[in-house]
Amino acid sequence: MSSSRVVVTGGTGFIGSKLCEELLSRGVTVYAVVRSNSSQRTRLLNHSGLIIVEGDLNNVIQWSTELKRVQGGFDVFYHLAWEGVGNKYRNDQIQINNLNSLLETIKLAKELGCSQWIGTGSQAEYGPLNEIIQEEAPNKPTTLYGATKVAGGNMSAILGRELGIPCQWVRIFSTYGPGDSGGWMLIDVIGQLLDGVTPKLTLGEQLWDYLHVQDAAEALIALAESAPVDSNTYNLGSGSSQTIRAIVETVRDIIDPDIPLCFGDIPYRPDQVMHLEANVDKLREQTGWKPKIDLKNGLNQTVEYIRNSRLAQS
Amino acid sequence: MSSSRVVVTGGTGFIGSKLCEELLSRGVTVYAVVRSNSSQRTRLLNHSGLIIVEGDLNNVIQWSTELKRVQGGFDVFYHLAWEGVGNKYRNDQIQINNLNSLLETIKLAKELGCSQWIGTGSQAEYGPLNEIIQEEAPNKPTTLYGATKVAGGNMSAILGRELGIPCQWVRIFSTYGPGDSGGWMLIDVIGQLLDGVTPKLTLGEQLWDYLHVQDAAEALIALAESAPVDSNTYNLGSGSSQTIRAIVETVRDIIDPDIPLCFGDIPYRPDQVMHLEANVDKLREQTGWKPKIDLKNGLNQTVEYIRNSRLAQS
Repeated sequence: MSSSRVVVTGGTGFIGSKLCEELLSRGVTVYAVVRSNSSQRTRLLNHSGLIIVEGDLNNVIQWSTELKRVQGGFDVFYHLAWEGVGNKYRNDQIQINNLNSLLETIKLAKELGCSQWIGTGSQAEYGPLNEIIQEEAPNKPTTLYGATKVAGGNMSAILGRELGIPCQWVRIFSTYGPGDSGGWMLIDVIGQLLDGVTPKLTLGEQLWDYLHVQDAAEALIALAESAPVDSNTYNLGSGSSQTIRAIVETVRDIIDPDIPLCFGDIPYRPDQVMHLEANVDKLREQTGWKPKIDLKNGLNQTVEYIRNSRLAQS
Repeated sequence: MSSSRVVVTGGTGFIGSKLCEELLSRGVTVYAVVRSNSSQRTRLLNHSGLIIVEGDLNNVIQWSTELKRVQGGFDVFYHLAWEGVGNKYRNDQIQINNLNSLLETIKLAKELGCSQWIGTGSQAEYGPLNEIIQEEAPNKPTTLYGATKVAGGNMSAILGRELGIPCQWVRIFSTYGPGDSGGWMLIDVIGQLLDGVTPKLTLGEQLWDYLHVQDAAEALIALAESAPVDSNTYNLGSGSSQTIRAIVETVRDIIDPDIPLCFGDIPYRPDQVMHLEANVDKLREQTGWKPKIDLKNGLNQTVEYIRNSRLAQS
């Protein structure tokens, strides 16, 4: 994929920024479409191969001319942008806007001569299954976010077939790693432990699949490099799980083995998912990719990142 | 359901107008939301129990005040309106608009005190399965219409749970009967046979499920009357199938047994579905409903209707 040219939307996001970084390190020229008022722009490195295209995903026509003028066209269109990812927007009607922008980016990818469009779905498309999840599992989303992601996956395959551009839909499970901005259990727990505070925890028997963000970025690149000829749906997770209890204990041991943990302080949610794990055989077979960073090393990096961010802020 | 009050969107459609007629005949007061420029308004009968509410589904706030002023509230909200039902819109991005209006009608139904919101999905949600289809079958839509209907079903259940109003999603299979406006195989074939023309036909081995529109309307009423307490998805079809060949032969015999038929004049489509049939056990068990009009009687009525419409126009 070196000396190629790609478009990335959502490049200021947690996974998107890592994807840009990994692409740039491989010599790929990255056109990152970024909202003019994005508060996360600092996530993108300064790099000679990075070109920022200011634009609003709800108004593709406004900024697409800049891309259409680029000589030699593009190879891959990564569409990671999604409005309303935060927990408080999961049942907000704004989710629906994402379907229009998704279809517009596929049309644009075709116009730009891309050989692939790669969009990101979510484990939320499955709903609470309590098992190792294959791509063929039924979709029973419990949030408008999940329902809209299901629609996005279906629609991308349909439009891709109509336009003749393979559209890959990657359902990403839980990710973590340096750069994560919090609001999720793991990052919050790290913050509390760094403060020497015993976090409020459930019994922690839930089995959870956590994938390091760098492995996620590498998977998205491997998928483009393997050049699938048809549109398809792939799970992206680590393909393994540990109990929340084991994960939190690992974090505690990294930070300070003397902090006591008290599992069971808070009850499970009524709809608590007890097992969330991706079967990633399909992606592995297509691409040869596999995750490289084990959870302990990844958690070490993450704790280090959060510690350093706090030092920088203090 | 008599002496109750309901809202119907899409009341000028083929199924919607029959639903209104059946509701009115039961003494129900029907508030039909109709676009001010609807060309199909003549489908709605003049009836003292019918109140027309002019309004655009993309602008619910504009017309909902009229409904909110009605004393005593409403019992059921039927949402049958859908933008882009015709074949030429099946892959049009306008499909997505329907999701916003669908969510708005659920919020409105809750505000109006309705005990049920009933929306209509489609066999298109399943894609080409070639089997008797149960509600649990995977959703593999091949059109944006089908993908948006899948999203509508998912979203209605999610929002219904959040707001505390049961939302029923009824996936309607092929319907036919008096009032059908053509553009579909069966109606076109009837037209040609009435002209004495031998229609161009495939081999006609496809097994197809045709439900009479009156049976469809009665099913939608039975569902409201059975008052499900949770949101659910139901197939609505006849629950039986015949070959297209047998159906066309029946129509030919009704019109003129001497017209020759030539099956196999045109090839099957590359993606020809050879078996489309609904399993309707779930709806039958919930409601006790079953179809009353057999295909031969229904085709007789349909031929008669088309013949009379032509006489009226000539």
